[in-house]
Amino acid sequence: MRGVQCRMVVSPCLVQWQHVRVDVIDVIRTKRDRGELSGEQIDWVIEAYTKGSVADEQIAALLMAILLNGMTASELARWTDAMIRSGVRLDWSTLDRPTTDKHSTGGVGDKITLPLAPSVAACGAAVPQLSGRGLGHTGGTLDKLESIPGWRASLSNDEMLAILQDVGAVVCAAGEGLAPADRKLYALRDVTGTVESIPLIASSIMSKKIAEGTGALVLDVKVGSGAFMKTEEDARHLAETMVGLGIAAGVRAVALLTAMDTPIGLTAGNALEVRESVEVLAGGGPSDVVELTVALAREMLAAAGLGDGKDPADALRDGSAMDTWRRMIRAQGGDPDAALPTARESQVINAESDGVLQRLDAYAVGVAAWRLGAGRSRKEDPVQAGAGIEMHAKPGDPVRAGQPLLTLHTDEPDRFERATEALAGAYTIGAERPHPSSLIISRVSGA
Amino acid sequence: MRGVQCRMVVSPCLVQWQHVRVDVIDVIRTKRDRGELSGEQIDWVIEAYTKGSVADEQIAALLMAILLNGMTASELARWTDAMIRSGVRLDWSTLDRPTTDKHSTGGVGDKITLPLAPSVAACGAAVPQLSGRGLGHTGGTLDKLESIPGWRASLSNDEMLAILQDVGAVVCAAGEGLAPADRKLYALRDVTGTVESIPLIASSIMSKKIAEGTGALVLDVKVGSGAFMKTEEDARHLAETMVGLGIAAGVRAVALLTAMDTPIGLTAGNALEVRESVEVLAGGGPSDVVELTVALAREMLAAAGLGDGKDPADALRDGSAMDTWRRMIRAQGGDPDAALPTARESQVINAESDGVLQRLDAYAVGVAAWRLGAGRSRKEDPVQAGAGIEMHAKPGDPVRAGQPLLTLHTDEPDRFERATEALAGAYTIGAERPHPSSLIISRVSGA
Repeated sequence: MRGVQCRMVVSPCLVQWQHVRVDVIDVIRTKRDRGELSGEQIDWVIEAYTKGSVADEQIAALLMAILLNGMTASELARWTDAMIRSGVRLDWSTLDRPTTDKHSTGGVGDKITLPLAPSVAACGAAVPQLSGRGLGHTGGTLDKLESIPGWRASLSNDEMLAILQDVGAVVCAAGEGLAPADRKLYALRDVTGTVESIPLIASSIMSKKIAEGTGALVLDVKVGSGAFMKTEEDARHLAETMVGLGIAAGVRAVALLTAMDTPIGLTAGNALEVRESVEVLAGGGPSDVVELTVALAREMLAAAGLGDGKDPADALRDGSAMDTWRRMIRAQGGDPDAALPTARESQVINAESDGVLQRLDAYAVGVAAWRLGAGRSRKEDPVQAGAGIEMHAKPGDPVRAGQPLLTLHTDEPDRFERATEALAGAYTIGAERPHPSSLIISRVSGA
Repeated sequence: MRGVQCRMVVSPCLVQWQHVRVDVIDVIRTKRDRGELSGEQIDWVIEAYTKGSVADEQIAALLMAILLNGMTASELARWTDAMIRSGVRLDWSTLDRPTTDKHSTGGVGDKITLPLAPSVAACGAAVPQLSGRGLGHTGGTLDKLESIPGWRASLSNDEMLAILQDVGAVVCAAGEGLAPADRKLYALRDVTGTVESIPLIASSIMSKKIAEGTGALVLDVKVGSGAFMKTEEDARHLAETMVGLGIAAGVRAVALLTAMDTPIGLTAGNALEVRESVEVLAGGGPSDVVELTVALAREMLAAAGLGDGKDPADALRDGSAMDTWRRMIRAQGGDPDAALPTARESQVINAESDGVLQRLDAYAVGVAAWRLGAGRSRKEDPVQAGAGIEMHAKPGDPVRAGQPLLTLHTDEPDRFERATEALAGAYTIGAERPHPSSLIISRVSGA
């Protein structure tokens, strides 16, 4: 129906009623008819929606028009900037070291922030990471850290600054004042089928990360079954869009496209992932977790102008990353020596045949861990600290019939059935070794 | 951004929260991703929205997706049927004559219903017309009839039936029980930039007309500056869509595409148009009003199976249409002999030069009449019965410098200025006679 040449007279009442300069219907129509929104229109829409003076249904129609018709680069930069200006932008300029941060678009078993932030801090940068909680099949960094007894996610800006100055890394919850427009827009997108839009995803992520005040930012854009982006093309488009927004806002941004067809590491679940992260910080741990941690840490340091300094692989080996981790956890009330929670019940899935594990699907493992209690369906749901999945083999590993492949953990044994259902067809055992695939697919930097 | 291959896990909470079988987010996504909605999905959405169990913002996103991605013929037929089933469908099967009705998509000076309904009734059919009020630059039939002292628009179904049986024609307001889904959807479309969609326009019109219970329906689809459809292509598409929906619902439907670049007749405004209609009923009146009345009346009678009976041109000449009009007005409390209201103030616009009137723009005249007080900006605004515009020449007529071209009428003289502004550039006087154009462009009937 696009381009139908009919016209309804705008009721002038809308303008009067809202006491505004810009007519929201004109804004919707402009985007609907593939026009370009003016900077003034964008500023007005974001401000009016944040204040509650335009209705949810009007913004829902606009979001669907944006999803279907896209946004130009300059519209998107202005849109993102308006979202940042809807709240406060943090300032770490009093720190004596450069700031750098990482954002992952979310995957299964993605605990990388835990070994990454202290490794980077141990090499001389400050990492001011405002993080989130999990929803659906992907976990959230705060949920993972909250499985550490005593650790708290909420800090004041002054507490953040003190920890950054003292320890060099802080991972905490974003305050209400940061990009409040994004909070409202995200909640609306979630119920109106308008989540899956590259400009809307990019502006949501980047508005928060830019408002967080980091000087440099590395984006880990996941591709594959366990990621939001299923194709490399879409992931590259999202990465390029976010890098462009970062650079436009004065943040030194770079992105890595990384594989998310199989879970990262050998665990998916909150305390399980903390335990694995501590192994990595102790110089061990699964090779893919180490590879990704080091690659992202090097990018973060390079973006912060510290690329010629200490190498993060050394920080993992020499104990300085672990030392920073322990101070970071203690600074937020956590006890790094406390025993981590374990689930009350477990159940093992064994290999049915001899051969090589050819495939272990990230999405299926993520859904199973979620169903075991590691994830949540609604924001207000609790998560189980001990729930999740341990993997005893990864693609390429030989397996024997009867050998444990997966161990499922939960406090509530009635969850095993639906978790096991999610794992039907999730893995393949065959005769041939699978082609080895790269964890890091490619790198996207500013033009 | 269409086709982006990313996926957000549906929060299962939505389904639980609404206690529904169908997930509204799946419905939105299906249409967003150019899929076809199932009959069950359509029935559920319309019913849930009418009852208030899905949110405005969710339906707004769906409407924008429909506007941009369209609907298949079968989706649209089911959507329209669900709107009809949201309320009552009137039944005139006890009448001893066939029912037939007309709907116009709206134009400037379009008073055709007034001479049409009694002409058709005088030829043996029953006309059960549920009509509306004007909004913006187009007038509404009820506003026009309400300028007749005593006439009332609201009737019970029993009163309608009695008048139809006795007089053969009734024009009144639609009750609340008729297609309530349309009332909610139309109000939402009005504020979300989703009015201009052919499937949504067609289903809105046809759901009400089919629920009205008429056996036959003639659609007058206007094309041109004063119409919602600006191009013949769009008007034809709308006409074909509506005729298809009518036939699918068992209504003998046909459409005429008629020109709306210049106003119909020589008046635009409520009482002014009643006066002109009475001239036509008396056997006189402007030739274009007569032509359109007779053409539409013949179509209505043919669709009702009375095409071989009395000709409506004869009904206008022999006084039987006028007689039916007088009885129709009296049956609804009106006095057909009462003096019609006139505006307190008037102002004349004279021709600036000698020549031929080449163009008189319908949209400009409509906006000027609206600004004089003949129309309304919001549903709850009153209209002035006497306000409007008299035209002293139509395109093709010779004019002399200083001769009156237009007389503007209003009760509030401060309205003249903005009305005159709307008329700037609205007409052209030149040396050449304009090419004569057809009022009736074409006819659309079922395949």
